[in-house]
Amino acid sequence: MSDFAPDNPDFEAFVRASFRRQGFMAHLGAELTKVAPGRTEIRVPYDRRLTQQHGFFHGGVMATVADVAAGYAGNSLMAAEDSVLTVEFKINIVAPGEGEALIARGEVIRPGRTLTVTRADVFVLKAGREKLCATALQTLMRMAGKAERSDNGQA
Amino acid sequence: MSDFAPDNPDFEAFVRASFRRQGFMAHLGAELTKVAPGRTEIRVPYDRRLTQQHGFFHGGVMATVADVAAGYAGNSLMAAEDSVLTVEFKINIVAPGEGEALIARGEVIRPGRTLTVTRADVFVLKAGREKLCATALQTLMRMAGKAERSDNGQA
Amino acid sequence: MSDFAPDNPDFEAFVRASFRRQGFMAHLGAELTKVAPGRTEIRVPYDRRLTQQHGFFHGGVMATVADVAAGYAGNSLMAAEDSVLTVEFKINIVAPGEGEALIARGEVIRPGRTLTVTRADVFVLKAGREKLCATALQTLMRMAGKAERSDNGQA
Amino acid sequence: MSDFAPDNPDFEAFVRASFRRQGFMAHLGAELTKVAPGRTEIRVPYDRRLTQQHGFFHGGVMATVADVAAGYAGNSLMAAEDSVLTVEFKINIVAPGEGEALIARGEVIRPGRTLTVTRADVFVLKAGREKLCATALQTLMRMAGKAERSDNGQA
Repeated sequence: MSDFAPDNPDFEAFVRASFRRQGFMAHLGAELTKVAPGRTEIRVPYDRRLTQQHGFFHGGVMATVADVAAGYAGNSLMAAEDSVLTVEFKINIVAPGEGEALIARGEVIRPGRTLTVTRADVFVLKAGREKLCATALQTLMRMAGKAERSDNGQA
Repeated sequence: MSDFAPDNPDFEAFVRASFRRQGFMAHLGAELTKVAPGRTEIRVPYDRRLTQQHGFFHGGVMATVADVAAGYAGNSLMAAEDSVLTVEFKINIVAPGEGEALIARGEVIRPGRTLTVTRADVFVLKAGREKLCATALQTLMRMAGKAERSDNGQA
Repeated sequence: MSDFAPDNPDFEAFVRASFRRQGFMAHLGAELTKVAPGRTEIRVPYDRRLTQQHGFFHGGVMATVADVAAGYAGNSLMAAEDSVLTVEFKINIVAPGEGEALIARGEVIRPGRTLTVTRADVFVLKAGREKLCATALQTLMRMAGKAERSDNGQA
Repeated sequence: MSDFAPDNPDFEAFVRASFRRQGFMAHLGAELTKVAPGRTEIRVPYDRRLTQQHGFFHGGVMATVADVAAGYAGNSLMAAEDSVLTVEFKINIVAPGEGEALIARGEVIRPGRTLTVTRADVFVLKAGREKLCATALQTLMRMAGKAERSDNGQA
């Protein structure tokens, strides 16, 4: 779970370009705050439009940033001509998303030729302190040789 | 998985009022299209702001509507003085979200005093035909006697 | 989720032969009671050696039969030269396994070239009545062209 | 995920006594090799009776020891008059269970009054080296004031 070597020396530019193509990331106000080999971080400032019925961050926002942070953690290790699909993920919500921002950190557990297993923790930032609010475990599928723009495929 | 009796005769108004308090549902353009005892349906029209990098519905949107549809399926069976929290869910994405709208259908598998297990299927509507794009399995926790507005609690 | 056409006309013999090679199935006293295209059923009679601390069927036995029933449901649709691996599964335990036998029923949700998504319900039989005790959602990977005996591979 | 204080000073004896009451642990040849506050370890030597169709450890054995290791990690933090139920878990199998023994390590992610979230990693020992073969994420429910022998309850 520690050090991975990326296949693509331009992995950061590759991940950032893909992130920018996700209309939903802009709609959430999400920012990709870190990209390292096998690790990424996403941050979403609080906004009333992102809330559940109590005014806290919606669980769907937690799930989305967990999915995306873990997905790009996996994607960061792949070749430029590959793309990646989320096969499935599970998320446990362990505390309400009450605070100024969500921070999701994704990391690769086990990279694979076809499937990569990743995880993410989601923290809520409140008065400058991070508190774990969700944890997720994800499976990704590599679409080898299907660069992103032309990939309409499915598993 | 079929017929459940709601504790609250006004379950539909109760669920609809809670849904309206979720800022994130408006931000997604989501509509609560059906509410029955132990079952709900949510619909989200396609919008560029809801997409992943290929221009299809984002997996995070699928996860959100699965979570909410299944959550309100559970909530529809509870008393007016109860509120509900998502403990966890798992989602398998089985096809790309390519189409004009997402339709999520949630249903209760097993209601319980403390925990309720639910599921949801998410379909994408394309040229008038529904295609399964995701399926989810969820655990909910009932917060007995904590009506929604005053509940800041956690599991 | 209903009718699937098997690639292998001898799917039942194929599944039964693989089941017999699983030493753990004999150790559990498990029997493969039904094999249909995309569906299987497994039954395990109660035995003190299969219990948790209260004397009921262990959750690990429920998980095992859910995994195997869903796995062979997927396998039943594949070619004779393919083998299958469980990528992951999630199980919700909704009632104690108190009774004379466990019955697991697996079915395919969506077959795929590489990945197949399946589900299983586990029932406990008590005084002749079935009660749902667990439900599971699973991802399988097809190892194309790797017949079972020679497959040491991984995802 | 680091240091937890147990409610029960005799947590180790409590966990070991419960483990011994699980008939299935003896049937697997499983040994509880470590018990610490919020952490446990289980070991299962290889046996032909624990295998899948390729002669490796069965995924159901991995799932069982992940469930039990994570479950007792949670249980170790509870009072003597509490018991614990597995609500659900998800497991990703990332490598075949090919080796001399399985070692499952469970730990608490977030303890709670009603629900506790835990995780486990499962390693296979081959020629003296540990290799990750599965990782799991679990939800537990505390049955407060229901000591183990009298608890027939469910969620």
